[in-house]
Formats: sequence, C-alpha cells, structure tokens
Amino acid sequence: MAEPVQPLGKDGAKARVLVAGATGYAGALAAQLVWDHPRLELTTVTARSETGRRLDDLYPRYTVPLELKELEEDDFDDVEVGIVAYPHGAAAPVVAQMRGRGLLVVDLSADFRFDHLPEYERVYGGHSEPDLLDGAVYGLPETNRREIAGAELVANPGCYPTASILGLAPLARAGLIEDVVIDAKSGVSGAGRGKGEGTAFVTITENVTPYKPSGHLHRPEIAEKLASIAPAGTAPERLTFVPHLVPVDQGELVSCYVTPRRDVDQAELDRMYAEAYEGEPFVRLRDVPPGMRDVRETNMCHVMPLAGDDRIVVFSAIDNLWKGASSQAIQNLNLMLGLDETEGL
Amino acid sequence: MAEPVQPLGKDGAKARVLVAGATGYAGALAAQLVWDHPRLELTTVTARSETGRRLDDLYPRYTVPLELKELEEDDFDDVEVGIVAYPHGAAAPVVAQMRGRGLLVVDLSADFRFDHLPEYERVYGGHSEPDLLDGAVYGLPETNRREIAGAELVANPGCYPTASILGLAPLARAGLIEDVVIDAKSGVSGAGRGKGEGTAFVTITENVTPYKPSGHLHRPEIAEKLASIAPAGTAPERLTFVPHLVPVDQGELVSCYVTPRRDVDQAELDRMYAEAYEGEPFVRLRDVPPGMRDVRETNMCHVMPLAGDDRIVVFSAIDNLWKGASSQAIQNLNLMLGLDETEGL
Amino acid sequence: MAEPVQPLGKDGAKARVLVAGATGYAGALAAQLVWDHPRLELTTVTARSETGRRLDDLYPRYTVPLELKELEEDDFDDVEVGIVAYPHGAAAPVVAQMRGRGLLVVDLSADFRFDHLPEYERVYGGHSEPDLLDGAVYGLPETNRREIAGAELVANPGCYPTASILGLAPLARAGLIEDVVIDAKSGVSGAGRGKGEGTAFVTITENVTPYKPSGHLHRPEIAEKLASIAPAGTAPERLTFVPHLVPVDQGELVSCYVTPRRDVDQAELDRMYAEAYEGEPFVRLRDVPPGMRDVRETNMCHVMPLAGDDRIVVFSAIDNLWKGASSQAIQNLNLMLGLDETEGL
Amino acid sequence: MAEPVQPLGKDGAKARVLVAGATGYAGALAAQLVWDHPRLELTTVTARSETGRRLDDLYPRYTVPLELKELEEDDFDDVEVGIVAYPHGAAAPVVAQMRGRGLLVVDLSADFRFDHLPEYERVYGGHSEPDLLDGAVYGLPETNRREIAGAELVANPGCYPTASILGLAPLARAGLIEDVVIDAKSGVSGAGRGKGEGTAFVTITENVTPYKPSGHLHRPEIAEKLASIAPAGTAPERLTFVPHLVPVDQGELVSCYVTPRRDVDQAELDRMYAEAYEGEPFVRLRDVPPGMRDVRETNMCHVMPLAGDDRIVVFSAIDNLWKGASSQAIQNLNLMLGLDETEGL
Repeated sequence: MAEPVQPLGKDGAKARVLVAGATGYAGALAAQLVWDHPRLELTTVTARSETGRRLDDLYPRYTVPLELKELEEDDFDDVEVGIVAYPHGAAAPVVAQMRGRGLLVVDLSADFRFDHLPEYERVYGGHSEPDLLDGAVYGLPETNRREIAGAELVANPGCYPTASILGLAPLARAGLIEDVVIDAKSGVSGAGRGKGEGTAFVTITENVTPYKPSGHLHRPEIAEKLASIAPAGTAPERLTFVPHLVPVDQGELVSCYVTPRRDVDQAELDRMYAEAYEGEPFVRLRDVPPGMRDVRETNMCHVMPLAGDDRIVVFSAIDNLWKGASSQAIQNLNLMLGLDETEGL
Repeated sequence: MAEPVQPLGKDGAKARVLVAGATGYAGALAAQLVWDHPRLELTTVTARSETGRRLDDLYPRYTVPLELKELEEDDFDDVEVGIVAYPHGAAAPVVAQMRGRGLLVVDLSADFRFDHLPEYERVYGGHSEPDLLDGAVYGLPETNRREIAGAELVANPGCYPTASILGLAPLARAGLIEDVVIDAKSGVSGAGRGKGEGTAFVTITENVTPYKPSGHLHRPEIAEKLASIAPAGTAPERLTFVPHLVPVDQGELVSCYVTPRRDVDQAELDRMYAEAYEGEPFVRLRDVPPGMRDVRETNMCHVMPLAGDDRIVVFSAIDNLWKGASSQAIQNLNLMLGLDETEGL
Repeated sequence: MAEPVQPLGKDGAKARVLVAGATGYAGALAAQLVWDHPRLELTTVTARSETGRRLDDLYPRYTVPLELKELEEDDFDDVEVGIVAYPHGAAAPVVAQMRGRGLLVVDLSADFRFDHLPEYERVYGGHSEPDLLDGAVYGLPETNRREIAGAELVANPGCYPTASILGLAPLARAGLIEDVVIDAKSGVSGAGRGKGEGTAFVTITENVTPYKPSGHLHRPEIAEKLASIAPAGTAPERLTFVPHLVPVDQGELVSCYVTPRRDVDQAELDRMYAEAYEGEPFVRLRDVPPGMRDVRETNMCHVMPLAGDDRIVVFSAIDNLWKGASSQAIQNLNLMLGLDETEGL
Repeated sequence: MAEPVQPLGKDGAKARVLVAGATGYAGALAAQLVWDHPRLELTTVTARSETGRRLDDLYPRYTVPLELKELEEDDFDDVEVGIVAYPHGAAAPVVAQMRGRGLLVVDLSADFRFDHLPEYERVYGGHSEPDLLDGAVYGLPETNRREIAGAELVANPGCYPTASILGLAPLARAGLIEDVVIDAKSGVSGAGRGKGEGTAFVTITENVTPYKPSGHLHRPEIAEKLASIAPAGTAPERLTFVPHLVPVDQGELVSCYVTPRRDVDQAELDRMYAEAYEGEPFVRLRDVPPGMRDVRETNMCHVMPLAGDDRIVVFSAIDNLWKGASSQAIQNLNLMLGLDETEGL
C-alpha cells in the first residue's frame, strides 16, 4: 500500500479491508458488514481458530464466501484498512503491524481506548504498544466525530460505554452529574463465542443474573470518557456500574440513575437532549422507554431521559454487537474514509 | 363455620380452603399449592371468567380436578379459609364477605397492605372496606412472623416489595439506608394473564424494556414498609424504583443500590445479613450473585449483599408467582393455622 | 393512474406503492421493505386499527415515518402498486378495488392462491371476487418466475406452502412423491398480531405445541401446488401436514418425510436438487441440517435433502415473515416491475 | 451390605442411595429427587469433575448440601441402592461393581437397555459387562411394571424411547403399526451439560434445528421395544426417527405419524388408548394437543391420539430430564423397593 486512501473520493473506488479475528461474533459481523458495504471490499478474513472454513459455513446466516485463514504478513499487501477483533492485549501487536504497513485501523479491543496509559495498565495489565496510544482516537462519533475523521487508528468503544455515554453525554457536558448508578442488561453475545457452561442455553434461559458486580473493566472507560466531556471540575463524583446477563442473544439496555448537581425538570431535560442529538442519524429520542428489540441489528441508539422519582433516570438501548461493536466500527471507518457516515448501515 | 380453626391442632385435621379468583396465574397456583398441601383441603375454586372449565384443563400442568365456578354465598359454608386473588379494589368486598363469615383470609391484592388509608387512597383510589384495614397484618413472615401467626386477615405483599424488603431489611433495621435505587427485573407472569400485545411472545422475546419508570404502585409499599422497620428518623430519604420486563415467564431480581449513612465494609455486611437471616427457612445468603433460575418455582429468596463500587449493592431474587405471591400466601396460612411454616412448600 | 408502469425502465423512476393493512406483522414489514427499496416509493400505509399512529412509533424498530390511515378511494390516485395484507376474505374486495384502478397488486392473503374456486370455497368459504381468480398468478418465483413477471395480480403464497414446496419441488417435478408427511415448526409471529393468551409469552416460552393437527388451511394449498408441478398422474397420494408452535418469534422449518415411488440414493438426490436450484438467488442447498436462525430476516430458503432411514427426508427453512410473506412479496413485485429480482432484498 | 432390602417394608426404614455421576443434569436431578423422597436417604454423590463442590452450590436451585466426591470402593458400604448417571460405555463397569456388592441399581445409560448384545454392539460398540445383560430389565413401568418390581438391575429408557413408546404402545400391542415417522423435538438439556458452542444460548435461541437426522442412537432402542410389545409378525416395517433441537431447556414432544395396517377411526383410537392407560398415574390422555410446558418438571406423559389427515397421528410429551430420565429412575426404584410407585414424585 503506497498511497493514503482518504478521502476515498467521488470516483467510487472501494477501499480494501482485512478483518482480523473473524471467528468471533463481532469480527464475523464486521466482515459481513464490509461485504455488504457499497464502498468497501472485503479481501481477507483471518482467524486463530476455525481456519479453513468459509465464513458462510461457520455462520450460515452470513453470505461471505471467503475462507478463514491465519494472518500472515502478505495479507497486508493491497489492503488499505484493517479491522481488528482480537481480545484485549492480543490486539495491540496486530494493530501495530497494520499501522507499520500504513493501514487505517479500527480496533475493537480496549487496547487503545484509554487516554492515559497508567489507567489502562491498572485495568488490563501491561501494554505492548504504548507509543501508538497517543495517535489513537476514541471512536464514538456522536461525541468526537471530527477527530475520528482525521484519525488513522480508531479505538472502537466498549458496548457498555457506548450505551452509557450516549445516554449520559448531554448531562455530562452540562456538568450536571454528581453521582450515577448504571444498571446494565446485556445479551449473551456480549460474553463472546464459546464460553462454556456460563453461556449455555440451559444456564441462561428463564434467568437474569448480575455478573462482575464490582470492578467491571468497562467502568473505568465510562468514567474516563464522561470526565473528558464534562466541564473541568464536574466529573461524576461517584459511579456505580453493574452489568446483568439476560436471556437475549444480542441487545443492551442501560438504566442510568443520576443525582444531578441541581434540579432539572422534564422540559429542560427534553430540550437538552433534543439539542444534543439533533441531526444525529443514529440516535433517536424516545418518549416511552426503549426496549432492546427496538434497536436489534441496527446501528441505532434509542435514548429516553426522565425526571423520575427522586432523581433523573436515563434509558439507553443499543445492539451490543452492532452499535456496541461492529456497525459502530463501520460508522467510524466511513468517517475515516471521508464517506457518508451512514453508508452501508 | 362455627368454631375458630386455629391452631389446627395435632389431630391432623385439614383446614378447608376456598380460592377466589383462580383463573389468573397467582390464583391458579395458590389453588394447586393448597391441593398438594398435606394439611389443607381445597374445596372450591371460583372465577369470574372461564367458569365451567376444570382447573387442570385450563392449566394442563396442574392437577386440580375442580371446576371453576362463580362465587356464591353458599360457597362459604363448611370452609375455614379464603385465599383471594382478585385485582386491587375488587378484592376488598370479597375479603369483607369472607371475614363476615368468620373465614381466615389471605388476600393477594394491595387492598389491605397499607397501614395508612390515605396512602392507599392516594395510590389506588377509594377503599370500600376501610374498617378492615386496622386488623389486617402485612404478610412478610421474615419481618413480622409473630403478628401473622395471630392474624385473621393477612395482606400478602407485592412481589417487588417482597424481594426489595428482604434484600434491604438488615440495612433498614440498622438505620443505614440514606438513599436507595431499586432496579427491578421481572418475568412476564407478573403482568397477569391475558394482557394482550404488551405481553405477547413476539413483543417480549429478545427484549428488555423498562415500564412505569416513575410512579409505580409498588414504590409506596416498599417505602412504607422500609420506614416501618427502620429506627425512628432513619427512613430512606430518597427511593427510586424502576421495574423492567424481561423475557422470562416467572422470576424476579432486584438490584438495590444503597447509599449508606456511614461506611460499611464487606465483613460487617456479611455479619449483619447472617444474623438477620440465621435460621430462616426461605432465605439463602449467597456469595455469588443469585439468578432468577436459582429460585424458580420455590418459596426461596436468595440474597447477596456487596460492598460495591462507591455504594452498597444488594441483589435479591425470588419467583414472582411463588414467594412473590402464591407460595408466600401458603407460608402465611401455615403461620395463621399454627402449622409448621414450611409445610407443603 | 393512466399508464402501465411495467417495466419500470432504466430511467430509475420509482414505482409508488400503497400498503393496505400495515398494522399487522406482515403488512408493517412489507411497508418497511418498500421504504428501504431503491426503486420503490412508499406513499401510503393504511390500517383498520391503530390509525393516526406513525409506523415507526407502533414498531419502534422500523423507520417508516408515515402515519397509518384508513383506506379511502383517493389513496389510489398517483399510486401504481398495491400490497394487500388483509385477512383472508377481507382482502378480495380491496384487491378488486385496486385492480379496478389499474394498480399492480400483490396480495398476501389466500384469496387468490387457488386455481380452482371450489377448492377455495371448501376451505375458506365464499369468495367475493371470483372473476379475478383467473388472472391471478401464484407468487412462488422459484417455480413460476415467468408467469409472475407478466402478472398484474400476484397471490403471495402462504408461509408453510413456501417452505414445503421449495423443499419438495425437485421431487415433485420428478414425479417421485408417493406419500409425504410434513411436520412444520413455526415461530409465533405466524399466528399474527394481538391473538391473546394463545400467543402470550408465558404460554409460548419453554413450550412446543402442535396446533390444528388436522385440516389446517395450508394443506390444500400445498397439495394443489405440488400436484400442479408434478407430471400427470404423479401427484402425492397421501399428504399429512401438522404445524407446531415453537418459542421463536419468526422462523419456520418444515421436515418433510417422503415415501418415494422408487429408490433414490443420496447422490441422485444431491444432483436433482443442485440442478433444480442452480442459480437461484434465494435458495441455498445445505449439507448439514439448516436451522431457523440461518435464514432469519432474509428472503432465503435453506434446503437439505437426505436419503434417510427408511425414506427421504427434506428440511426446508425460511423466515415466515420474510420469504414466507413480506420479502417474497417484494421479490414478486420486482419481477412484475421488470426490476432485478434481488433488488432491495 | 448383607441383607436384601426389598421390599422396604412397612416399618418406614429408608433405603440408602448413592448417585454416581451427579454433576450432569440427569444425575444432579436424580440426587435431588432422592434427597426429597420420604423413603430414600441420599448418602453419597460422586462425580468425575467438580469434585469438592457441594451440589447446592453447583446447582443453586437444588438443596442437596452434600459434597461431590470421586467414587471409591468404600462408598458402597452401608448403601443399598446405586443410581448411575454415566455416559454410555462408562456406566457398565460401575454398574458391575455395584451389582458385585449387592446393590440394587438403576442405570440411566444405554448399556443395559438392549435385549440383544449384537444390537448394542452395532450401535454403541463393545460392551464390558455382557454377562449382566440377561438379568437387566428395561425400566418403562407402563409396559413392564411386573418385571421391574422383581429386578435388581433396571436399565432406565432413553428420553426419546420413553415418549415414543408411551405414545405408540397401544397401537403396537394391537399390531397396527405398519410404518411410523417419529418427528421429535427436544429441549437442550437433553444434549447434556457443557457441550460448547452447539448448545450455547446464542446458537439455540430463536432457532430450531434437526440433528443426527439419520442413524440416531435412540432409533434402534425404539424399534426393539416396539417390536417386543407387538404381536409376532407385526413389528413396524419402517421406522423413521428425526430429532430436532428447540429453544427450551427441558421438555420433549414426539409427533408420531403412523400408517396403520387397517383403518382405525377416532372412536376406536380413543377406546384403545383409554383402556391401555386406565389407572396409570403418570399418563394423561388429552383431547387437545399437549405442549411441553404441560409436563414440565413432572413425571407425567401426556398423550393425544388422532385420526388425522391420511394417517394416524400421536403426540406424546414428557420432560426429558424427568420422565425421560431422573424421575422415571425414581419410579423404577419405587417399584424395585416395593414402595408406592408414585412416592416422592
């Protein structure tokens, strides 16, 4: 790859894309979305397991006829974009390799999400590519579209941070969040593929269970990003985050309970959210509580702010595999390539 | 019915029971539990719809061969106990009729749950039998077993109050709850039978939706009961309650986020809960988060208190139709009749 | 409407479409598919209930911002296509009205599916528009693409006939089916919207139930169509059809047990099916049994023929709302309008 | 153990029971049923994995406080009964060991189900304890109650054979089955615990999939047993058996399509089934199709015979873990011990 690809221009050329880690739910979906995208061309899908199988055989609902292969150096020839769907820690070296070859990269792992290395290290352990952190941009377009458009490495947000920050951003920007409890409910695909008895049908059906009720990895990500968009000195003082597994394959709902720094009535809330999300193609404000089904297999986030009993309550629903992972990666890629942000979504 | 039945005595006589409102989920289950109970005899099941059908035909999983009939005055002859599973408002007159005939009554509606008539009226509207309120006892055995044992009219708690109060009682008694958010998840049977599109399979599956996110009827019940067991002046100052519908037929989980009046560490929490629930046959303390399945079709409540991120978190799981309604009615009835509290459960 | 619209031509003009009966699952989906279609323009959505509500409010996952309205004569002005999603019997008069105004019509009901009026009358009762029957074409493109392309009124097949005939057509054409048992499993959306306790979540979850185990309305449709593609004298002699309701929102699987007129081994079966479906964009042959998920929310039919124990077994999976109803309507419309058959699908 | 235990007698002594293989779904449930049984005492639960964990910790819904341990020779001291829930092949040696120590044994595997060794070997491979086959009795009480009562080793039937044979026995005994197709639907627990991606929630939900559509292990068991109860020369000539996985945790429905040797109308069918199952405590005849939920967590089998379109159709529903495995083991044990057959069920 010699020339920079961005912007892709009006001639309709397609950017060639490699998806690394396409065996898992998020990587496979990213590959399918690229496959269906009018301005992208899926050239290669790599994996560390299930190699030799076609993607449309591993996931018969998908239509990508490519064979999963192990990642090799040659795979980067004639490719302009890499999407990385590796586990945390394993992603960084692959991202570095791709950046070394000049690829634009969207990384779905946590490896490049944090602004501050020590915070990452505290949460996830050592980082193999700390030099790349500075150039990485957090990929939540509704909060920082401009930076993403100019970025060469975008760190795709976690699913819980996506739903939580989209739900809370208008309040955070106004410096209003003193304290927040985020009670999150997630579909099982969020746990990843092949996780054994804990995600077995018999374990999950007719059940709802909290998990990692303290110290969940996504809590610091939410805290850092909320703080970064809040006026100085108004970061939330307390933040409790508890996820629950629900008998749903894909979908995510966060219920945010906010103690505001001052009284805010429904009319002000409505105004605040309407202004914040006016013209956003992928955020829809609701006046009845949104459900997971309402956003299933879409890049949408449905948000409802409510002046509730004794505090502000905000509901925010996404599809954890789409807006919470793979379709948001495409949204970011569209921005990076100078395409219409909604292309292929 | 001439003689008082309690205690039922050691001669093994069976108390004869009428279940009014046995078409709905809770009434039908109560009838089945009475049917299977070694010391109770189910004589009559009444209903306002589906009359003429046998209960084991309406609910083929059940084994009660009795025919549903309209309630008539004669039905109270030769019966010592009435269980009422009518909607709020409709229950009070039937309860009054039963009490007038000397029956011991367990009422599953909200009509006799409140200590203060104005509070009831504010929430539910007018009350047709206010004189009976004084003698009614709130039927949550783990908080007031003694009063229930001597009562002739027991108001069976709501499902959300049952789970919430059992989860929070040790903290409330210690006067520690300054502020609490209760995020509740409930199976669909809690909405009752025959509710149309809102509880249709297609609406519920692969979905989670908040509902009545402010002003839910169970919030004042939770608030009144928590206040009643808290030392003077230590009732919670703020209480937010938001229920969610999950794709589960029966089951309920409340996640309670408590701001305590002083710091409480895990060791103290564990001690406090162990003392509170020592010897309780129907409460089990857990050191991993409980799931709804763990208590499915049992009278159990599983509770886990946690010194979490920035506040105390308590999880409490019940079956909304069992401990949250019908089996708790049997537990109350056992106490009222002087039987072993666990009989038939 | 003055001029015939077909073919739509290369100028990229959009055909204007009215969907009548857009409150139900199939009509609403048809409206959404038209909305998203590059060569169709959705002008009007009508309904007999829920009028005044926007479609994207009634179905928040959908993005059609049009308001549901009662059908009026004026609605046919400036419209070239009508899609009718009315119940059987109620559809015929609306179809007649549309045809009278020159609209191309795809009708999702059974009213125009039968070749022989007496057969329709036997199954469904009287027919209000028998004159239109002759001109109506059965809309299963994989069996009669050419007739559909020239038709002005297409009767969209039932969901069970779609899956069954696609599964059995190669055997039927070869005159090989002496006897067939079709055991069908359907998602609950097939029963339609707002059907009460029978389709309630609590009734359906963790359950599988046969329904209408004899005399189902779709059996004669399957029989007539299989007979029509079989060589003279080789129509199936016996046909047993039993549907089951499964805890799935949308999806359908038919398992067909065929007693062949002569021995057929796996190699011959594979050859026969490969030839029959070569080049078909919406049929995929599988060598492992297909599941409902594999075709969820697609216009695909996955088929697997198997020389099984003591007879031939064929599995055929579709999405009952898509290929079994609304997306097949679009496929038919594409053909009628001279568009690419896969456009918008 | 010196003395024979059967009959247990009227003195109310409890038979002491060891459950070998209590980690899996069936073994754990068998242990719980023994624990709750008024005339049995659960002394030991053994396992090959998860040893050291308490059963009520591994399955929090259960109440057995015993620790899972590896099986040792000493465990047989002071035990009169062994229930074996090991995989096929692994069970035989443990059964032999138990029989050598004089224990009554109920074996849940296939190892002792076949009358003919060659048939077992053809299906499952070599048999380590062929000498025990002769004394083993097939444990389907509704067909051979008397033999079970006198047996020392009972082979508990497979779940599919249980449902199928109970559905077909009246027809088989009358020599009426010429040909039968059995389309079976099973809950996922039938696949066993810890089976990976194939039984993951994301794979199973909103899905129905045929599996092992030819050559399933249960087919020869069904064939042998149907033949054994049919008059000489009237064994079914053809038998097709295809199981499907449905999104249900436990439950099983078989739909049997019978070509009878002569015409049988509904009245005769009803009479035949009524006679066959009169007085059977665990079979209920239905006049509407039974669903899986109707028998969930019970030892019941619901059966509906129907003179259907072009052949006889019989539906038979059980809970695959209860009547299809563990509760049927208790029913057998009750018979072996001379207890009331319904005790503890």
